[in-house]
Amino acid sequence: MVESTYTVRTFKDYPKEGINLPDTSSLWKDATSHRKHIDDLAAALEGVKFDKIIGLESGGFAVGGALAYKLGKAFIPIRKKGKLPTEKYTTEILDGGKMETFEIHKDGVDKGEKVIIVDDLLGDGNTTLAALELAKKLEAEVVAAVYIFELTSLKGREALKDIKVITLKSYE
Amino acid sequence: MVESTYTVRTFKDYPKEGINLPDTSSLWKDATSHRKHIDDLAAALEGVKFDKIIGLESGGFAVGGALAYKLGKAFIPIRKKGKLPTEKYTTEILDGGKMETFEIHKDGVDKGEKVIIVDDLLGDGNTTLAALELAKKLEAEVVAAVYIFELTSLKGREALKDIKVITLKSYE
Repeated sequence: MVESTYTVRTFKDYPKEGINLPDTSSLWKDATSHRKHIDDLAAALEGVKFDKIIGLESGGFAVGGALAYKLGKAFIPIRKKGKLPTEKYTTEILDGGKMETFEIHKDGVDKGEKVIIVDDLLGDGNTTLAALELAKKLEAEVVAAVYIFELTSLKGREALKDIKVITLKSYE
Repeated sequence: MVESTYTVRTFKDYPKEGINLPDTSSLWKDATSHRKHIDDLAAALEGVKFDKIIGLESGGFAVGGALAYKLGKAFIPIRKKGKLPTEKYTTEILDGGKMETFEIHKDGVDKGEKVIIVDDLLGDGNTTLAALELAKKLEAEVVAAVYIFELTSLKGREALKDIKVITLKSYE
């Protein structure tokens, strides 16, 4: 983990008891923290070779779009059901207590391309598992999963044990 | 309008007859086009003074996050109902045929601050009108609305006639 200082507010016992949720929007609201978190993610990715950035809707769009700009990479969205206009792969997973469908364009990533998956927050890792399932259908190689924040008590790293996980700041 | 060439695929008569929808994800998928559209938006904003970038969920997150990085600005999200963790202003508007609720944190923008609103596509302008309503509640000053694509047949510019509108590429 990269040790960094950002301007972040947290919400105690939100969305449920025992979780202190970092508010991503409070980091983005500070122009210095906004730029710094992208630079820090780029630094943490030094030496990691990959072709494309896959971003999870919608926090991963803001982080992934900026990181793709910084690194000169393509940005491939994973969206919730019914938002992508052409042929896609689909998977379902439990996200925050309800089943959600995630989709990616079939031509978003070519077979054998190396990708990273980006989101703002690593919780239980379920949405990233959905992204891994979609990457598998694309026959893409996931070389890292990248987040601003990590909620360690939700044990996302254990769920993603086969993947290199990069986070900038962790909370209980 | 800035004249630019990007790698973009369009869908004829999608989502309904008479509309040829540009697929934002096809632009993002090309690393050169991805970087170029952010540089071009930044160039189009030269001389426009503003404090913060407001991005509409979720296409506006990818564009706004990257543009905020490029320009060293804060990024403030407008999200659909129930996604923001603390006190917010709320407004409802017809979006793609159904009523949608959009929200912004009450402390996202200070009174009198100058902001730009960012999204990937200008259609009928309704979601931007929702953003303008939220900006009004915050007593923020909207100095421009910024998009990659414009569907001219939907007359979004007419709906937003009091606002400076910047788009990079237009379609019927």
